[in-house]
Amino acid sequence: MREEFQTELLEVGQQLVEMAEAVRVAMRGATTALLDADQAAAQAVIEADAEVDRLYRRVEERVCEVIARQAPVATDLRTVISALHISADLERMGDLAGHVARTAIRRHPAPAVPGELAGVVRQMAEVADRIAAKITRVLSEPDVLAASELDRDDDAMDDLERHLFAILLGPRWRHGVEAAVDAALLARFYERYADHAVNSGRQIVYLLTGEPLAN
Amino acid sequence: MREEFQTELLEVGQQLVEMAEAVRVAMRGATTALLDADQAAAQAVIEADAEVDRLYRRVEERVCEVIARQAPVATDLRTVISALHISADLERMGDLAGHVARTAIRRHPAPAVPGELAGVVRQMAEVADRIAAKITRVLSEPDVLAASELDRDDDAMDDLERHLFAILLGPRWRHGVEAAVDAALLARFYERYADHAVNSGRQIVYLLTGEPLAN
Repeated sequence: MREEFQTELLEVGQQLVEMAEAVRVAMRGATTALLDADQAAAQAVIEADAEVDRLYRRVEERVCEVIARQAPVATDLRTVISALHISADLERMGDLAGHVARTAIRRHPAPAVPGELAGVVRQMAEVADRIAAKITRVLSEPDVLAASELDRDDDAMDDLERHLFAILLGPRWRHGVEAAVDAALLARFYERYADHAVNSGRQIVYLLTGEPLAN
Repeated sequence: MREEFQTELLEVGQQLVEMAEAVRVAMRGATTALLDADQAAAQAVIEADAEVDRLYRRVEERVCEVIARQAPVATDLRTVISALHISADLERMGDLAGHVARTAIRRHPAPAVPGELAGVVRQMAEVADRIAAKITRVLSEPDVLAASELDRDDDAMDDLERHLFAILLGPRWRHGVEAAVDAALLARFYERYADHAVNSGRQIVYLLTGEPLAN
């Protein structure tokens, strides 16, 4: 029973990694759509979100099956329940990629991000992608995710967000209120995406190893 | 067993309503803090969030106990699992009240919301509060929550958000970029709060009645 349970847990873990891959692809596409004012890329991201939602429902079904079949208790039950939290984080990351894509569409054919913000937005996207990439690798390389690294990525995102706000609230900002509001919301989308990625990364390690991430 | 399960489900429902009450109080306090530049009110909201987080963990513990003890399957299992989604929505609503309170603190002693936006922000807060109030009453009056009403509340929130953006992107806006960015983020916090409230309201009805909300 115990071995079967571990196998089923690993399968749930694989589904989660599949979801993590999908939302990583989504945010990459959304960033391309945003920085290159690429409407087709934006549209593709929005359409692909249905697949993430489908994966989300599949994880929940799978978790219910595992609980019904294996009747886990105590720590085992908590572990399988953690898969639900992870999938909720990942589902939300898909939504946030959709928000970025929709911002690109709303401004198209104009670029949604003024030139002097493109650098910092690209860096925010890179940090978000770096965290998402770690999640997708954790199944094959369980030691790839270190808590200290996730904290560092988180700090980098906070620094970038502060930098972006300094530009758009600074004396040389000349793109007006609408572009500033867009940029502030975009920063929030990337920051939230990274936050959910860090959360789900921590929990995936717990799910797959039964141990919380070491610092 | 079946009757016991229903009783335990109702107890989980009561815990969720307690959480809903707490996050309703939190957003009311945050709105007061925001519109009256009341720093003590803001601080109280931020401190009270620890209690919401505690309730959140208690719901999860309780759900695990119910699953371990009653070993529900099929629909019963899905129903008890839905309590986890509801508590996640409510926990997030507490966070969003905290974001509103922190905005008030950041601008203190200046008001974070310029006079011409106070009306629309107050209305957004009222819609958010109306939905949250329905959740807290659903246990004693299960028919208080109608899907059509929730949809109407949701539409009202969208209209208010559009109105707010029309003001801050309009030609007469004279409060600069920073106040506009704050207002846009505040609008998002209220809109997200209402969105989570609608979600959790729908799911609480399902949890308590076993039936989805009728339209």
